[in-house]
Amino acid sequence: MKSAASSLLFTAKTPISLRRSQPSVIHLTTSLLDKSNRNPINLKPLRFQAYTSFSRVMASSSSFKPEQARAPPALPLPTPPVTKFKIGLCQLAVTVDKQRNIAHARQAIEEAAAKGANLVVLPEIWNGPYSNDSFPVYAEDIDAGYQASPSTAMLSEIARHLKITIIGGSISERSQGRLYNTCCVFDSKGNLIAKHRKIHLFDIDIPGKITFMESKTLTAGETPTIVDTEVGRIGIGICYDIRFQELAMIYGARGAHLICYPGAFNMTTGPLHWELLQRARAVDNQLYVATCSPARDAGAGYVAWGHSTLVGPFGEILATTEHEQDIIIAEVDYSQIDQKRTSLPLNKQRRGDLYQLVDIQRLNS
Amino acid sequence: MKSAASSLLFTAKTPISLRRSQPSVIHLTTSLLDKSNRNPINLKPLRFQAYTSFSRVMASSSSFKPEQARAPPALPLPTPPVTKFKIGLCQLAVTVDKQRNIAHARQAIEEAAAKGANLVVLPEIWNGPYSNDSFPVYAEDIDAGYQASPSTAMLSEIARHLKITIIGGSISERSQGRLYNTCCVFDSKGNLIAKHRKIHLFDIDIPGKITFMESKTLTAGETPTIVDTEVGRIGIGICYDIRFQELAMIYGARGAHLICYPGAFNMTTGPLHWELLQRARAVDNQLYVATCSPARDAGAGYVAWGHSTLVGPFGEILATTEHEQDIIIAEVDYSQIDQKRTSLPLNKQRRGDLYQLVDIQRLNS
Repeated sequence: MKSAASSLLFTAKTPISLRRSQPSVIHLTTSLLDKSNRNPINLKPLRFQAYTSFSRVMASSSSFKPEQARAPPALPLPTPPVTKFKIGLCQLAVTVDKQRNIAHARQAIEEAAAKGANLVVLPEIWNGPYSNDSFPVYAEDIDAGYQASPSTAMLSEIARHLKITIIGGSISERSQGRLYNTCCVFDSKGNLIAKHRKIHLFDIDIPGKITFMESKTLTAGETPTIVDTEVGRIGIGICYDIRFQELAMIYGARGAHLICYPGAFNMTTGPLHWELLQRARAVDNQLYVATCSPARDAGAGYVAWGHSTLVGPFGEILATTEHEQDIIIAEVDYSQIDQKRTSLPLNKQRRGDLYQLVDIQRLNS
Repeated sequence: MKSAASSLLFTAKTPISLRRSQPSVIHLTTSLLDKSNRNPINLKPLRFQAYTSFSRVMASSSSFKPEQARAPPALPLPTPPVTKFKIGLCQLAVTVDKQRNIAHARQAIEEAAAKGANLVVLPEIWNGPYSNDSFPVYAEDIDAGYQASPSTAMLSEIARHLKITIIGGSISERSQGRLYNTCCVFDSKGNLIAKHRKIHLFDIDIPGKITFMESKTLTAGETPTIVDTEVGRIGIGICYDIRFQELAMIYGARGAHLICYPGAFNMTTGPLHWELLQRARAVDNQLYVATCSPARDAGAGYVAWGHSTLVGPFGEILATTEHEQDIIIAEVDYSQIDQKRTSLPLNKQRRGDLYQLVDIQRLNS
């Protein structure tokens, strides 16, 4: 038993001041791709005034320094190009036949678009089985162009054809001798506008339940990915990325309207955590969260939980499904973000005098 | 509609290095109280080696710098004085009669202890109604001693008598002309070993549902509160504090086994968020979370949701109740923390190269 004398209270005896200065101008580097979708266009770094009214914000803020709870300070929520639109979540059955998987995904995207979806999300690893044995077999060299990447070629073509935005779930990507778990985002002209490589590899060991080590074959990505699309500013995470609340906080501070997590939770972690984590990311950051899982195949080596879901900025489940193959069509209404943030003004109530989340790449860019 | 050319990818073109140096020695200030529980004992600041094996950790860590995801680096989980014990959550009915509330709380604590509880938690604002009108009326000057504070006098006396640790919910505290929403923690000798003043005041406005502005009468606390007790290292938050994930992250990094949130969510935010938030704090930080609400009084000005709950480090609900007056007795098993952290080694997988949560007071202490 500890004695009372060993009790520790972590208190500050003197007023605290942040030592770090806060930039009022944010520098962003851009990474666009040319018409072939293969070669990055090098632009001069954008420089824009993130807080035109920063001094006003500073002047009106209290000693709690809410704007300092994020470093750099959170960007204001951008006005989205559309306020309301339909999202389609394609919970696809995945087979060992890659060509069939591609054709099947194409059909599902067409069906979602026919039902009005302007944004379609695919599952994690949808062009082949989810396994360390399969990742190298089904991998594609996305940067080498569409001849070398039939999965992304299809996504580009169908996005342009249907004039929709596609969050292309993920496929295993081969690049310079390494493998990644990679999500490609296409705009309505078929341009590849973002590529997210899973940042947090799925290495877990729940004895007697589920053991998986993605790091046996895969390399982790090096950067968060957030992209301005025709349906709002969207942050991307893949599956295990959702467990790290910091990533969602970064996206929130970068002005995301929506975070999309293609993901294949399993029969252990799915019932325990899948819904909980997506609702938590939505309510804590007051934005939309969409997840898309493969359908369950009880005979597969890795059995997916399913339950693709759309969550609103109050953590409310707006649409979900069970584990069978399905296409969810649901309406997103970004005006709800402002409404919830007005009701619960968390961003103005954070204690930047006590804690601060640093977005290291944005701080250094 | 935005053109593709306006798409932004926030990517870093060059390797990122953290500019801030990481201290390997953590300085902590102590704030103990003397036998009268009124006067702080001034001790020299403790200085201890937080990471005796810090260089080893650094050497073995990957380029992802997981130890830098918290600044200062997370403390190792301390060995708790007990691994298993029973916790009692007293979901009390609260009346306008303060003396009756105090006597009633005392009875409930005695009942919980009789059922084996070594740690008893009370609700937020248990000695009078939860309202801006009532806070000044029921407020007590805790620092002025037990003559001036019958509520804490009872808690101290009963903790010593029953030889248990008490997280004393909260009462309104009057101090130097200000009012606070304050939680007092007592050890088994009756010593007041920690005092938490609600950091995030409950100012929300959900039109047609619930509007409340604690800031009309209350002042916010200035510091997180974590304390080593005979039943583990416990972080304290009060109600609205639970909405701020950063506070729980700070407590996790300071080595908390358990976070206790006395809280009175209402009939709007209760069903929406009460269970969600406590499960999220537990699973994201892989520690225990205990909440304690007043029982529901449908005739009160502010109607509490109830549903006091104990959550385990996998986000699993270990014990809960409905809205009536109740005493929950449940077992805490701290060995589950290590077990879950071994299965899902989140702390070793965080990307300190991409994000960092700064505990400002600990960094500056």
